[in-house]
Amino acid sequence: MRSVSIKELLTGKQLLQEITVNGWVRTFRSNRFIALNDGSTLHNIQCVVDFEKFDDAILKQVNTGAALKITGTLVESQGKGQNVEIQVRDIFVHGDANPEVYPIQPKKHSLEFLREKAHLRVRTNTFSAVMRVRSALAFAIHQYFRDNGFYYFHAPIITGSDAEGAGEMFRVTTLDEKNPPLKEDGTVDFKEDFFGKETNLTVSGQLEAEAYAMALGKVYTFGPTFRAENSNTSRHLAEFWMIEPEMAFYDLDANMDLAEDFIKYVLGYILEHCEEDLKFLETRLLDEEKTKPQSERSEMALIEKLKFITDNNFKRVTYTEAIEILRNSSPNKKKKFQYLIDAWGADLQSEHERYLVEKHFKCPVILFDYPAKIKAFYMRLNEDGKTVRAMDILFPGIGEIVGGSQREERLDVLKQKMTALDIPEEELWWYLDLRKFGTAVHSGFGLGFERLVLFATGMGNIRDVIPFPRTPQNAEF
Amino acid sequence: MRSVSIKELLTGKQLLQEITVNGWVRTFRSNRFIALNDGSTLHNIQCVVDFEKFDDAILKQVNTGAALKITGTLVESQGKGQNVEIQVRDIFVHGDANPEVYPIQPKKHSLEFLREKAHLRVRTNTFSAVMRVRSALAFAIHQYFRDNGFYYFHAPIITGSDAEGAGEMFRVTTLDEKNPPLKEDGTVDFKEDFFGKETNLTVSGQLEAEAYAMALGKVYTFGPTFRAENSNTSRHLAEFWMIEPEMAFYDLDANMDLAEDFIKYVLGYILEHCEEDLKFLETRLLDEEKTKPQSERSEMALIEKLKFITDNNFKRVTYTEAIEILRNSSPNKKKKFQYLIDAWGADLQSEHERYLVEKHFKCPVILFDYPAKIKAFYMRLNEDGKTVRAMDILFPGIGEIVGGSQREERLDVLKQKMTALDIPEEELWWYLDLRKFGTAVHSGFGLGFERLVLFATGMGNIRDVIPFPRTPQNAEF
Repeated sequence: MRSVSIKELLTGKQLLQEITVNGWVRTFRSNRFIALNDGSTLHNIQCVVDFEKFDDAILKQVNTGAALKITGTLVESQGKGQNVEIQVRDIFVHGDANPEVYPIQPKKHSLEFLREKAHLRVRTNTFSAVMRVRSALAFAIHQYFRDNGFYYFHAPIITGSDAEGAGEMFRVTTLDEKNPPLKEDGTVDFKEDFFGKETNLTVSGQLEAEAYAMALGKVYTFGPTFRAENSNTSRHLAEFWMIEPEMAFYDLDANMDLAEDFIKYVLGYILEHCEEDLKFLETRLLDEEKTKPQSERSEMALIEKLKFITDNNFKRVTYTEAIEILRNSSPNKKKKFQYLIDAWGADLQSEHERYLVEKHFKCPVILFDYPAKIKAFYMRLNEDGKTVRAMDILFPGIGEIVGGSQREERLDVLKQKMTALDIPEEELWWYLDLRKFGTAVHSGFGLGFERLVLFATGMGNIRDVIPFPRTPQNAEF
Repeated sequence: MRSVSIKELLTGKQLLQEITVNGWVRTFRSNRFIALNDGSTLHNIQCVVDFEKFDDAILKQVNTGAALKITGTLVESQGKGQNVEIQVRDIFVHGDANPEVYPIQPKKHSLEFLREKAHLRVRTNTFSAVMRVRSALAFAIHQYFRDNGFYYFHAPIITGSDAEGAGEMFRVTTLDEKNPPLKEDGTVDFKEDFFGKETNLTVSGQLEAEAYAMALGKVYTFGPTFRAENSNTSRHLAEFWMIEPEMAFYDLDANMDLAEDFIKYVLGYILEHCEEDLKFLETRLLDEEKTKPQSERSEMALIEKLKFITDNNFKRVTYTEAIEILRNSSPNKKKKFQYLIDAWGADLQSEHERYLVEKHFKCPVILFDYPAKIKAFYMRLNEDGKTVRAMDILFPGIGEIVGGSQREERLDVLKQKMTALDIPEEELWWYLDLRKFGTAVHSGFGLGFERLVLFATGMGNIRDVIPFPRTPQNAEF
């Protein structure tokens, strides 16, 4: 008999049929009720055992975490909380889980404890819900772009260029770790390395995506990116996934339109497809926040917060306007901000971004036209000569979630900016080629996938929304 | 006016309307016919210019590769080869492309030449077709798994374990390249490295996927994997993308069923959605093969070959049967094989795999139950004590395209195999945990994405089916 998923079973379509189901025991109550879960859904199916008909040796193995194959009849449930249950005819124990040593017991575990058990934590309700939502978000991203005429493009992971300067990089090498070959001047001879040059892990696929956009029109990356920064915070990972769409013939306005539409689509997708998991995560968050002082609690419950994004127009504000608002704001005047805003040109911190979204505008905000000095070299210079066509999307509770720009398509302007920043032209000869041959207005943005999952699930630490987090001093599993 | 994609325009729905379109010039004939392409489709749109109405300075910039914005009226075409064309009212030159220096001219370029211009080669018909098919295949993969109850799971890229032994690895480090910190015994002190231990780029996400399958039921990875092997062949990349589904409660038969169904779905998807690109690639391949001796040409044209997969049942044959067939085969007896098959236990080479598929069975073949000695430690040992529940799927022209197995779920057997292969238990403590707590039958397989794209597009070199290939001595762009 083919086994069937618990998600299917719970729809009740196989009522009164004999079915076989496989899964893991979540709890076993009163020697009678097995709550079985197979990961297909948050919900368990209740399996009702007539213990007098079963060997004690079998029932003793029915502990939390044990893997079972259960055969029986699907019937309407007598108890509360479920519509259907299984009257068990046969139990086969695939593998038991000794309660003396199995760490995932049916009690509250701290997220920190579970982080040490990253190979097992997905067996909990919280992490299975997070990872199902993560998977749905990833699918929604592919679906959105496919529906909108984008091509998925794989940017290289190992890169020979470190010109973007988005952050510290990891070196990728096969040279002898202790005695690398040296050149005559005593420096390491990377010509002897695997790729014949020094190589690093990518910090962004954008530059390569531009090359593809200038041929296929609309493309996007969705791949891992890396930062070798010693940031031990709840918002930083050394290895994370990023989505980077890049569109030929899009100016900054079209870029903002796309980013807003895209974010609303993917969050709308999980509101539609992940209702149960989101409700569970919403309750989890409410419980967690009960332990916090009122001032630190979210103003909105999880689902309300997601709808706040999908149902509101994003307010578009120039950086210059935002600085004026912040300079005159009450927390700035009362010196409540950690970083006070006193002049145009200041880089905004998370506290400022959150003030704008949560207190001032009370809706998602897109800031644009930033000072050139605080933004990357490839962003298009405005006619004023001091701002660039950059945009950041700011979300409640999280601050910046998207950063994008119209790209500098003019060869001479780009070269000047590279010279000013000491970026050697020979490093980016191919990127300059894109401006020499058939250059055009184009734009794109980057979205850190884990930041999005963090926002969508209401989890507090980015290490809890990626299966096996990589952070300083931590590459376990 | 909103610009519209050429793909949309060619459907003719905007006939007699004024439209604006952006794209790059492919050719400009007779000072009158601009063939414009925007990457949305293989096809160009013909833009008809009344040259007397345009400034010569504008028309002189209309060269192959120039980016234009064209406004005009969509009308039924007078010429052959297209249904609609644009009567041009206005031309705006986004960026020109000096024919003296722009390398992608409308003539035949060798694939080797274009490989050196990987940032521009996607502006050709061949590479844009390949990359559109690649994108469609990637989407089909996500669609298939989503439709079948799988969760997408991101395996870590940087890994602290090198236990699988699937191949040579790249080291990931932030230590000083010349003077790394040393321990008292003179070896490098990786405790000082970013992750506090030696780390490498992953060769496979399978082991981590098993951890997720044993909680979520059915999962898959789709991410980059790496081999630091000095293989300069048309089939090997140092960086490539791999798909690895992993399913709890699946035995080898269910695994084979899934793999066959999956491959038929994704190839069926491109037959349905990429017809024009595939036809173009089929013609390209036929042209290329005209230069080869008859014996080296494909027996089937591209689309026929794809249908050969989608329309045939895959023949399932044990390794033992296959060895018998090969031993008695004419090329073995006549010593035509480079590696002669004389005894059970031999590892099969591509020539043998292709013989089985192309000459003997004349259909896709799944070989299973391989000798334990030539397969990985995690494959489930059969009762005979000498074969394991491994399976490889063999395709015409390419040999192995999928490798999979039922996994060894028995703790004691797994430990014995690890001991025999000197794999330290402390390296894989968490992998062993999966067998200690709720272990169960489970299976999975791996599919090299670029091998699939190679097969689907009929290209001859794997460097031509990934945007920016990484191979020994080559990490340009």
